[in-house]
Amino acid sequence: MRRLTLTRRSFLSLAAGTAAAQPLMGATGSWGWLDEPAASAAPSWHDQGVLDLAHSPYAKLRNVPVRAVTLSGGFWARRRKTNVASSIPSMHEELLEHGRMDNFLRLTGASNAPQRGPVYSDSDIYKWLESVAFALQSQDDPALRQTAETTIREIVAIQEPDGYINTYYQGDRKKDRMTVPTQTRGHELYCLGHMLQASTAYYRATGDRTLMDAGMRFVDGYILPNFGPEADKRPIVSGHPEIEMALIELYRTTGERKYLELAGYILQGDPRAELRPEQIVYMNCGVPFTTKTKLQGHAVRAMYACCGATDYYMETGDAAYWKTLEVLWKDLAQAQMYVTGGVGARSAGEAFGEDYELPNAQAYGESCAAIGNMMWNWRMLAATGEARFADVMERALYNGINSGMSLDGTLYCYRNPLAFDPTSGEHIRNPWYDTTCCPPNLERTFASLPGYFYSTATDGLYVHLYDNSEMRWALESGNGLRVTQKTNYPWEGNVRLTVAVDQPEEFTVYVRVPGWSRESRVLVAGKAIAEVRAGEYLPVRRRWSGETVVELAFDMRPELVTANPAVAEDTGRVAMQRGPVVYCMEGLDQTKGTDARAFPLYMANASGATHGEYKPDVLDGVMVLSHAGAKRTESVDTLYALAGAEKAPVEPAELKMIPYYAWDNREESSMQVWMPVVG
Amino acid sequence: MRRLTLTRRSFLSLAAGTAAAQPLMGATGSWGWLDEPAASAAPSWHDQGVLDLAHSPYAKLRNVPVRAVTLSGGFWARRRKTNVASSIPSMHEELLEHGRMDNFLRLTGASNAPQRGPVYSDSDIYKWLESVAFALQSQDDPALRQTAETTIREIVAIQEPDGYINTYYQGDRKKDRMTVPTQTRGHELYCLGHMLQASTAYYRATGDRTLMDAGMRFVDGYILPNFGPEADKRPIVSGHPEIEMALIELYRTTGERKYLELAGYILQGDPRAELRPEQIVYMNCGVPFTTKTKLQGHAVRAMYACCGATDYYMETGDAAYWKTLEVLWKDLAQAQMYVTGGVGARSAGEAFGEDYELPNAQAYGESCAAIGNMMWNWRMLAATGEARFADVMERALYNGINSGMSLDGTLYCYRNPLAFDPTSGEHIRNPWYDTTCCPPNLERTFASLPGYFYSTATDGLYVHLYDNSEMRWALESGNGLRVTQKTNYPWEGNVRLTVAVDQPEEFTVYVRVPGWSRESRVLVAGKAIAEVRAGEYLPVRRRWSGETVVELAFDMRPELVTANPAVAEDTGRVAMQRGPVVYCMEGLDQTKGTDARAFPLYMANASGATHGEYKPDVLDGVMVLSHAGAKRTESVDTLYALAGAEKAPVEPAELKMIPYYAWDNREESSMQVWMPVVG
Repeated sequence: MRRLTLTRRSFLSLAAGTAAAQPLMGATGSWGWLDEPAASAAPSWHDQGVLDLAHSPYAKLRNVPVRAVTLSGGFWARRRKTNVASSIPSMHEELLEHGRMDNFLRLTGASNAPQRGPVYSDSDIYKWLESVAFALQSQDDPALRQTAETTIREIVAIQEPDGYINTYYQGDRKKDRMTVPTQTRGHELYCLGHMLQASTAYYRATGDRTLMDAGMRFVDGYILPNFGPEADKRPIVSGHPEIEMALIELYRTTGERKYLELAGYILQGDPRAELRPEQIVYMNCGVPFTTKTKLQGHAVRAMYACCGATDYYMETGDAAYWKTLEVLWKDLAQAQMYVTGGVGARSAGEAFGEDYELPNAQAYGESCAAIGNMMWNWRMLAATGEARFADVMERALYNGINSGMSLDGTLYCYRNPLAFDPTSGEHIRNPWYDTTCCPPNLERTFASLPGYFYSTATDGLYVHLYDNSEMRWALESGNGLRVTQKTNYPWEGNVRLTVAVDQPEEFTVYVRVPGWSRESRVLVAGKAIAEVRAGEYLPVRRRWSGETVVELAFDMRPELVTANPAVAEDTGRVAMQRGPVVYCMEGLDQTKGTDARAFPLYMANASGATHGEYKPDVLDGVMVLSHAGAKRTESVDTLYALAGAEKAPVEPAELKMIPYYAWDNREESSMQVWMPVVG
Repeated sequence: MRRLTLTRRSFLSLAAGTAAAQPLMGATGSWGWLDEPAASAAPSWHDQGVLDLAHSPYAKLRNVPVRAVTLSGGFWARRRKTNVASSIPSMHEELLEHGRMDNFLRLTGASNAPQRGPVYSDSDIYKWLESVAFALQSQDDPALRQTAETTIREIVAIQEPDGYINTYYQGDRKKDRMTVPTQTRGHELYCLGHMLQASTAYYRATGDRTLMDAGMRFVDGYILPNFGPEADKRPIVSGHPEIEMALIELYRTTGERKYLELAGYILQGDPRAELRPEQIVYMNCGVPFTTKTKLQGHAVRAMYACCGATDYYMETGDAAYWKTLEVLWKDLAQAQMYVTGGVGARSAGEAFGEDYELPNAQAYGESCAAIGNMMWNWRMLAATGEARFADVMERALYNGINSGMSLDGTLYCYRNPLAFDPTSGEHIRNPWYDTTCCPPNLERTFASLPGYFYSTATDGLYVHLYDNSEMRWALESGNGLRVTQKTNYPWEGNVRLTVAVDQPEEFTVYVRVPGWSRESRVLVAGKAIAEVRAGEYLPVRRRWSGETVVELAFDMRPELVTANPAVAEDTGRVAMQRGPVVYCMEGLDQTKGTDARAFPLYMANASGATHGEYKPDVLDGVMVLSHAGAKRTESVDTLYALAGAEKAPVEPAELKMIPYYAWDNREESSMQVWMPVVG
């Protein structure tokens, strides 16, 4: 069962043919894919993680395949079950109903429907396919697979002889294809990027490379011969970054260096495109990535650009890239991120604001941007093995991403505000958006989640996330490894980790101690470890043999959180966090009920005990918190008052809080994360 | 010297001819215009105020001509002097330099320059002309008058036979003229509105009706025959409200009811225009004004629409209009106005936000919107005589409007934020904007200011504003009246008002007691009045004879102000106000100097004494305040921290404050109006 390090060449010799689908992991614990012939011992499609970093020279960590980790009976298992049972099928219905597949069928004459949806509509189909691919890694579903294969067939059927595929620019709009103006607005490369990501994910799920071959034909036949830095070729701007990371994943999957080089050229920006300064800022492309000094412009574009740049760094080790990534990450973590892990404060331009510009009710915090934040931090973590990146990932995942999908999996947030007043008339959760980027993005994220729990490194294993689960995989030495987690995380802080190896071996298990855990305890085989520091990976190095139990206890006491004084809207306010879960107040849980105008009248004590109670019947089971505070007994009519003027009377009140991710899953109500303190 | 109430007919018989310019008020105190023949005793051009409400049946108050009030040696006299000496001439240079007059000259062949500037560029010339008109009322200036007359001649020279004038839509773009799409974006009626406002102002200043006649030809020859509710005419949408109030002022000036009716039709909205809901909200037109329930959309458009609607109410008494105006005003005063009187919180769409959405650093608060706020409240005050409207006017005038022009009169704010961090790279004060609506709007406002100090009513006189000044005018009875003010307002709260009448007469002097004055005293002829209530007009009814001294003492103690708890960004913060003047902290006045990152570290004590010192050499002479507070001695790096975590050390600090209007007149520095309180 040793995994051999093979040359890229022998690895590719496998990938060249159309691989037949392999049996999925059996219940016996022996893995069908390990029975592949020896020549395929390089990461076959079956062994590849969310990212395939097996041959990335500047990645410290390697991904573990989604299929190697089984989540069951816990927090995320429930979310993933809903995702497969409700979200993926209902979104498929929505996509069909809104003509997103008719757009393809029209071009082969199989539909008479006119083109529908915005210019980037194809990408939603691709993201939905990617969700299916990750879901199939965990559990085969012949009907779903059949639907996916039909979809892929219908996509590939419209491919033009030179490889071009894009339903918006085939037919009447052909003349506008891939000029600089349409590159900046037409999202052709964005759609191609999502096609490539779906194709590598589907290949990794099933071995079926139909879509990936089509994607390669697009790049090889249409892009590379016509576009590039050479004088006789036309310039490329990505317009909406996405193609960069997709090309690098295609490079990792195929070993074809031209895809990495193309990604590098796009990340560099081609001055011949002559973008205006505001286009460069908004679109996060067109100038060398390494010239960036702060997060700016469209937040999803910024996060995807950072993903591509980190991928590029992991392949090339370009120090200028790393320097820029560190500068941007510092800007993210110190000045641009919501306590929920959401990013992109401004609705106007769906953009990053100035440093510390983090309004709550007006927060944009697009679901896609929080996902981009997690994707970027996953890459930064892979490059370094540093826990600060995992802390951001966890923050985004449990809060600003998880809020994006309703508990029943059928409604989605585009924006994720941190305060809400229903009298605004806005509805935050909706089944469909004409720009429906967020729903399938949430679906692919939840579907891929098992792939984010662990990483391997040359010296052992990293444990990033906690939930009831079982991993069956191998160390980089090839030694078979099984890790189980028993926990009630995130409601309780105890995790019982069982590490089982096939052969005794000395290696390190890096156990993530979350940054929010004030006091943490780790016992290895019953023996306490002396120094356990929050916000770090605790390295447990030993000769592991048979089964070893590692007991973790993280500090789940509710914590009041304050923001940097430069965050104007959080002055005089506190937020509540318990473990990785950020809380909020919903009006309907308070004594004054749903009266929206009364809501700003509640204030929290700045200290004092918080009482928690797990309520299995509330919001699919959540820990509900209550904290002492006060409320004004009358609403305040004046906009401004002299400070000495008579104040509205105040009486004690018990504030009730639920996890932020679960807000707006009952009747519509006021909501706020940052509570004024009694003053 | 009795002013006779004449029929509209006899009033018009004067206006019909091209009146010769009349001599301006002589230094002797006898007014040349009173020597006009008896047939002109109706409000001649010379008698008309900023608004002419002499015949408006539903106006309680009448305007006093700008020329009747002389400001000298005080706060506003200095501003007006700068306006005439620097702003009006330098803006004229800027307008010429940026081709705004070439746009006219091009059409008569007198210039070869291409069209320059945005679609509404003509309006800037008109607003500049209006500034000149008001300035000429206070002081004749033959050179300035010559420039204005040349400008008017060049404007009128391009008038087409049907009356049309608009440099953007003459020539190549003629075919696009006044279709619904261009009405919504083309600003043709907005430009016409400003032309009409300039023309009535210039007529009132000089008796020269050249521009007004041209404006009437435009309306009579081009608009009325082709546009209107009739089936054979095309629909009108104002696109950017402005035409409504301009037409009503033209009606007041000419007595031609068709102009009032046209304004009413436009305020009603024509459903045939088929505007989209978001256009209706943004543009504040296209549906009946009386269907509005809150302030929404583009703030300047909203304010100008409210001006037109209030004017319409004052002419028609339509109760539905008044009801709507009251609802909108309540929204303004209770939920939508900055403490500076600025309005329109959002940069995106230059728009009103949700109720209580009043961010500080991100505040838009366009200078034009604050001016629109004052213009609207001036009309609401005229309709009712209620002091709440004067309080809003004063707040906007001293703060959110006054901030819009640099002290030297050559730099202008487009947006007027309530907090600023220079590391953003933004420059708030600039000499020129390609959309240069605000600079000449500020100029016309300051130039017209004497017209806002007083009103007459059937039962006497209203005193609205305070500054060193002399009014020479007459009661509505015709009895000659002279009122002088001696004061150091707004730095001191004492005003010595001398009321002199030609003939003894019983009437009421309504003295405005500002809403911010905690304790006020009024002595009439040395005798104290018992009950003086803030935020009301104190009616002093007596038989006035000869000269009577009314001594006013308002409470100028510095006051900390708090905001409604629903204003998220002002939670845990206070603002400082002293009299009508709102204060701010600038970084360069604080102990840590201009270090922008240090600025959020300052906090103010929530109570305690404030020390004030008038500094004649600082910022053209201001009362500087200092208030006890604290500052963190180290900057805070973390974005979020557990509330119990060690806090950055704090030490006492004396916070220095200057008037908000004077910020950014020295080296660029941090600024904030709302200060966090020590907590």
